[in-house]
Amino acid sequence: MSIEQRLVEGNNAYAATFTQGDLALPPSQKYAILTCMDARIDPAAAFSIPLGSAHIIRNAGASARAAFRDLVISQQLLGTTQVLIIKHTGCGMLTFDNATARKLVKESKGEKAAEEVEDLDFLTFGDLEGKVKEDVEWLKSKAVEKGVSVSGWVYEVETGKVRRVV
Amino acid sequence: MSIEQRLVEGNNAYAATFTQGDLALPPSQKYAILTCMDARIDPAAAFSIPLGSAHIIRNAGASARAAFRDLVISQQLLGTTQVLIIKHTGCGMLTFDNATARKLVKESKGEKAAEEVEDLDFLTFGDLEGKVKEDVEWLKSKAVEKGVSVSGWVYEVETGKVRRVV
Repeated sequence: MSIEQRLVEGNNAYAATFTQGDLALPPSQKYAILTCMDARIDPAAAFSIPLGSAHIIRNAGASARAAFRDLVISQQLLGTTQVLIIKHTGCGMLTFDNATARKLVKESKGEKAAEEVEDLDFLTFGDLEGKVKEDVEWLKSKAVEKGVSVSGWVYEVETGKVRRVV
Repeated sequence: MSIEQRLVEGNNAYAATFTQGDLALPPSQKYAILTCMDARIDPAAAFSIPLGSAHIIRNAGASARAAFRDLVISQQLLGTTQVLIIKHTGCGMLTFDNATARKLVKESKGEKAAEEVEDLDFLTFGDLEGKVKEDVEWLKSKAVEKGVSVSGWVYEVETGKVRRVV
């Protein structure tokens, strides 16, 4: 079965029993989760997030800088007042750097593709807990985040456990 | 119960029955879903995504431009070859523009906060299906996306149904 077929068939089953079509646009619990796009994380299940209650932002590495636009929108336009940044063990962002990524792009996709990413900061990092703390501090330093509660966490893909760092 | 308490208690229950601690870092089904951070979307359930099988990228509006870094990493570093862009009905990004967002920030957080977002493009849009098509075309126009399959979809938050646009 193709990816598209599985999506459509699985969605038909989901929609057949769907009863939450009247949820409001703003998150009912007024918080946002920022976590990684990693395939091994299911935020709704692992972090106990009922449908409609929280924004769930996911990018490579759960980067606060990369999610700045999303967070401002979540807070200023949709009323959230709390952000939980959840990075995780075994993150791909711990395994390469800008030079490696650019070299891979050039080798596999050519010169024009290399130009498209030559100014791109991949926002990799070397120290997981240190980066959680640094992201929390960076976000808290922004005037636009005044009054927003920010905490930092680590999720363990090996055990399914989450723990608070800061 | 606070947000943090619910997360920790819910996660204790999740981890207690967790059995998938040996999943590989690269997505086993080699695809990425790009969808919105909206609280009313549960991609794993609605789009039938088994744990470990796909990257799930979520930002405000399911913006391909905002997810460019994530998509390059997903493909070049972690081997995905297919992207499904899934925007949705009732999206908050249909409801404001850059000027409105900047005005709100200035009024609620002050001058310094306004300066932090004065160059920020919130990437809002006015036509849902049009924007799905435009994002797909934009992504396909990139040399770094050569060989990657890109499709565009709309999820209906009112019915739980997803449909393909392009």
